[in-house]
Amino acid sequence: MILYGRYLSPFVRRVAMWLNLQERAFELKELAATDPNDLPKLQAVNPVARVPALVLDDGAVMTECFAICDWLDETAPAKRLVPASGAARRDCLQRIAVAAATTDKAVALVYEKNRRPEEFHYKLWQERLVLQVQGGLGQIEAGLPEDGFLGGEAPDGSDLATVALLDFVNETNPFLLEPGYPRLVALAERANRMSAIGDTRPG
Amino acid sequence: MILYGRYLSPFVRRVAMWLNLQERAFELKELAATDPNDLPKLQAVNPVARVPALVLDDGAVMTECFAICDWLDETAPAKRLVPASGAARRDCLQRIAVAAATTDKAVALVYEKNRRPEEFHYKLWQERLVLQVQGGLGQIEAGLPEDGFLGGEAPDGSDLATVALLDFVNETNPFLLEPGYPRLVALAERANRMSAIGDTRPG
Repeated sequence: MILYGRYLSPFVRRVAMWLNLQERAFELKELAATDPNDLPKLQAVNPVARVPALVLDDGAVMTECFAICDWLDETAPAKRLVPASGAARRDCLQRIAVAAATTDKAVALVYEKNRRPEEFHYKLWQERLVLQVQGGLGQIEAGLPEDGFLGGEAPDGSDLATVALLDFVNETNPFLLEPGYPRLVALAERANRMSAIGDTRPG
Repeated sequence: MILYGRYLSPFVRRVAMWLNLQERAFELKELAATDPNDLPKLQAVNPVARVPALVLDDGAVMTECFAICDWLDETAPAKRLVPASGAARRDCLQRIAVAAATTDKAVALVYEKNRRPEEFHYKLWQERLVLQVQGGLGQIEAGLPEDGFLGGEAPDGSDLATVALLDFVNETNPFLLEPGYPRLVALAERANRMSAIGDTRPG
């Protein structure tokens, strides 16, 4: 399999961690949606020009974490990172939903605050994004265990989405973490000690 | 169940159509993430302050289409809108992925072009979003059947995501459709003739 994208993208990183935890081999092709030189190469793989894109061994291209990770789990049922059914599945997907939505907003803030020329910044929009990211971080913090992982003794898919979020925020706009999210920081530390996770850490 | 959001949001609309096709009753509470008066009410339901949010009968809150629709399918197995397994599931989720990613970009363009004061517009960003939306629309058009639905004789989840995208683009930035996407327009027309779908059409 070929994974397109860079680990700085929390969505690319989530897929890479998922592949690593399932012990599936893949080749990383580091294209950035924001690099004009990379854009045509990325469009050739994914016309929406977004990462991650995962090219399967049969040549099919999958995009968007929810579709990619669903397929990864279905084709490695003994190594699922989201329970197959029932309330456990619902709760795990919902934890992923909160982490993913918060990540969307953290990424939007990077485009708005870190990459857009300052004269085009729109304060109202920035403030709303900050409120949304911190709303999500607070909700995640409140649901975290004191020890172990959301998935129990081993990380599940929601741990991966959560760690990808925390590390991305810390790398790009650490001021967002000022309210203090001690369980979230501790979870990421525990997770990053595992090579399947820590080896994908950007920066 | 209570669905928070307005049908102008293509993601809220997708969930509403899903519920309608599965003949599940729900109450719509029209909150807009962009309305300062609605914001605290929305945060109380979903701290990330994003729609859709679906409050289940047991009080649990679900957010993000991928998690909501997965749960809707699992709890109505005879009325699934995404196949339960195998290549059919993979392909349907991937079609939803393309429609959802394109919708994300169409929504981002509305925030950038339609809602942000003009002095803060950033042309490079607008151009990239336009390229991404049209890349996605072109890919979807190329995969559409001449008649019927992506799901066959009846719409599946990918038809719903696709129709929500087309109608949203047409409502907000119709210039994006100038390259011409005749199968996409015809699919939306066929789908909107069904009351489960057409009754949720905004505008």
